[in-house]
Amino acid sequence: MNPRSQVFKQIPGSICAPRGFKAAAVFCDIKRLGTGKGSDKGQKRDLALIVSDVPAAVAGMFTTNQVCAAPVKVSARNAARKFARAIVVNSGNANACTGAQGMKDAQEMTRATAKAVAAVYDRRKPDQSAVIDRRYNIAANEILVCSTGRIGVPMPMANVKRGIAQAAQRLSSSQSSARQAAEAIMTSDSRRKEIAVEFQLGDARVRLGGICKGAGMIQPGMSRTGKRPPAGLHATMLGFLTTDAAVDPGFLKDALEHAVAQSFNRITVDGDMSTNDTVLILANGMAANPQTADHKIFQRALDFVTLELAKMIVRDGEGVTRFVTLHVHRARTAPDAEAVARAVANSALVKTSWFGGDPNWGRILCAIGYSKAKVTEAKIDVGYSSPGKTKITFAVRGGQPTRVGLQTLGAIVAQPEFDLHIFLNSGRHDCVLYTSDLTEEYVEFNKGNLSDPKSLGG
Amino acid sequence: MNPRSQVFKQIPGSICAPRGFKAAAVFCDIKRLGTGKGSDKGQKRDLALIVSDVPAAVAGMFTTNQVCAAPVKVSARNAARKFARAIVVNSGNANACTGAQGMKDAQEMTRATAKAVAAVYDRRKPDQSAVIDRRYNIAANEILVCSTGRIGVPMPMANVKRGIAQAAQRLSSSQSSARQAAEAIMTSDSRRKEIAVEFQLGDARVRLGGICKGAGMIQPGMSRTGKRPPAGLHATMLGFLTTDAAVDPGFLKDALEHAVAQSFNRITVDGDMSTNDTVLILANGMAANPQTADHKIFQRALDFVTLELAKMIVRDGEGVTRFVTLHVHRARTAPDAEAVARAVANSALVKTSWFGGDPNWGRILCAIGYSKAKVTEAKIDVGYSSPGKTKITFAVRGGQPTRVGLQTLGAIVAQPEFDLHIFLNSGRHDCVLYTSDLTEEYVEFNKGNLSDPKSLGG
Repeated sequence: MNPRSQVFKQIPGSICAPRGFKAAAVFCDIKRLGTGKGSDKGQKRDLALIVSDVPAAVAGMFTTNQVCAAPVKVSARNAARKFARAIVVNSGNANACTGAQGMKDAQEMTRATAKAVAAVYDRRKPDQSAVIDRRYNIAANEILVCSTGRIGVPMPMANVKRGIAQAAQRLSSSQSSARQAAEAIMTSDSRRKEIAVEFQLGDARVRLGGICKGAGMIQPGMSRTGKRPPAGLHATMLGFLTTDAAVDPGFLKDALEHAVAQSFNRITVDGDMSTNDTVLILANGMAANPQTADHKIFQRALDFVTLELAKMIVRDGEGVTRFVTLHVHRARTAPDAEAVARAVANSALVKTSWFGGDPNWGRILCAIGYSKAKVTEAKIDVGYSSPGKTKITFAVRGGQPTRVGLQTLGAIVAQPEFDLHIFLNSGRHDCVLYTSDLTEEYVEFNKGNLSDPKSLGG
Repeated sequence: MNPRSQVFKQIPGSICAPRGFKAAAVFCDIKRLGTGKGSDKGQKRDLALIVSDVPAAVAGMFTTNQVCAAPVKVSARNAARKFARAIVVNSGNANACTGAQGMKDAQEMTRATAKAVAAVYDRRKPDQSAVIDRRYNIAANEILVCSTGRIGVPMPMANVKRGIAQAAQRLSSSQSSARQAAEAIMTSDSRRKEIAVEFQLGDARVRLGGICKGAGMIQPGMSRTGKRPPAGLHATMLGFLTTDAAVDPGFLKDALEHAVAQSFNRITVDGDMSTNDTVLILANGMAANPQTADHKIFQRALDFVTLELAKMIVRDGEGVTRFVTLHVHRARTAPDAEAVARAVANSALVKTSWFGGDPNWGRILCAIGYSKAKVTEAKIDVGYSSPGKTKITFAVRGGQPTRVGLQTLGAIVAQPEFDLHIFLNSGRHDCVLYTSDLTEEYVEFNKGNLSDPKSLGG
């Protein structure tokens, strides 16, 4: 069992479960449907705020797509600072391919959020702490901004600013506020994605919560800076994490990078990396754990939460009927292990065969062979197992079919979830990817429709 | 206008149009359906022979997939010699992932073909030429062998050998024989793919003909030896070319490599490179053109024929409703141009949008951005044109949308064929790819069905 997959105690709620976090979400008609003017009754919310009562350590991971939305650029810059106060996020418009105006709009969103949040906290009865008091004056660069939705459309800034002001008025630490934020960030998602855990850090009970969105355009390859890592990686996916742990900002950046590497950067639905992928974490220290506590526990909790959220994205993938955990074992190098996993997970032929419940190992071997990894056909084993089961039923040994019948293999692949194991037997490097089948519903959903401009997603 | 796209005079027929070539095709039940025993009435033929009356210069290009079928290995070895006499090819079984037995079977196919063809020519009235006479004793290594169909299933050698013997008896230079061979190599193809041209070389009229197959698992990346080229490239596709031109074997190898690089290696239907992709050419010299003739004309003819055949594969792609010629202009390097073209052409989101007739340039920019090429968003232009028209209607200029409406762009993308132009404006390197949309029919066709083992294709 992978130690990363250690199960943590889940608690109700998500981003408002840790102490000192508030959220709010409103409908402000980002898509300019022209409906619900002055009222958000019956409309899916499309703008959310996530606010820490006190300055929080911040870390972010951002898409390495070179065509990268304005809010990604702004947030990468602001997350490079050590502390932040709030996140503003909208769905319905990605603010991508919007040029200089897009950058101005993203920055304007941070300014409007800083002002609206500061005004709300000013009206509250001031805390006795002078340190916190000074922070009532919130700067724009303490705000992170994210957008998801249509590409190439200017942001409806009047609506956005009205939404930010309304949301600030509704900030609350209730579970329903967090739920509404999880709803507001959804685009093609069919359901909200939320989680929270509690664990002991020294003598303190610490909480970590998160929400995310994503269903298509999913093969994230995020890095700290949005600059490309040396090895090639590859949704719009957005993930927002909050914790009341007291951790050093430098440690938090390392911890998030580690967590994303084994979770959001290990999922692929359709192989398309978005222009807007972003994961952010705020750690406000209100649990008051000792800084000397074992940070491995925090890392494991973060790994657990991010992996659970990442899997929710794959399970909610557009038209998905199969959730496949793909294990590549014993590759010559780590990039080789990943290359084989991505070639198989993104093969149209392999993914369609899974849709049919067909254990088509011929297509799998074919994809292994055309991957950029160096492989030796005669050494390759391919097998299937049911989730949580250790027994692997091998379809291929040494590059050739075993005597196991297609019906036996098909019984495993017909399940909604199964594990695929590829043994390259050429080295010591492994890779795990979480992926899905490719279905007619995916095509139907994404085929575009000029009368419905939602398809210009990012 | 690209000089390669020069139009040559097409003549009726295909591989038997050049002098001195014979073909034959039979049904010998490669899939062991158990039907049609002793009779091929009403059955799709599944084994073909293509034979030159005299030893012919030979060249071949082979899949660079590391999981590579036994016949590919055997043919690559035999094509490395300068001369060959015949090609034996079957559909219904790929003889891939079949280990040592597969190699034995592929070699046995060459031996059986050599023997059967030699016997037929022996019975014919010998030519007066002693040179030709000596060649009646055909060696196994003068035979090239190709297979396409199911992966991981032993070849039904009794059926294969019976088929070879029967086909040899029926060898003829008639157009109907060539047509039957074009039918015999089909798998998921909906139609035969044939072409022949005639052109002047010195004082001689030379003919060049070809047949091919392929509809899915189509993103060939072939090299002369089956060894990977330094730059990454990426169907089962099979192509067989014949010509009566007198050309040097060394020149023929260079000419075929050039032709494949701009045709079969420039198509992608689903991004999957097969274990069996092979293109072979036989040049028997019976046109008796002077060796001093302008070989550029031969090259242009070969480029034309291979490109026309390659386009037929994309147009016949599984479930395809759109044929897209994708031009990447002004990339920094040639690999960058190709990386952008392949990222866009293989994007599930881009391909599904084309199916809907949706000019979703946001997804195109997104795929450009995650390609391995170095690009600058603010320099990118994206436009569409109708085939054969020089006017490009731009959707994006400098990374941002133009004022051209979606309906105008949509009118172009709604056509069964259109051109997509991506200008990176970062250098002097171009790339063209021929590709298709991704449709529900593709998924339906490939989703696999355990009761129909044809899906294990290669």
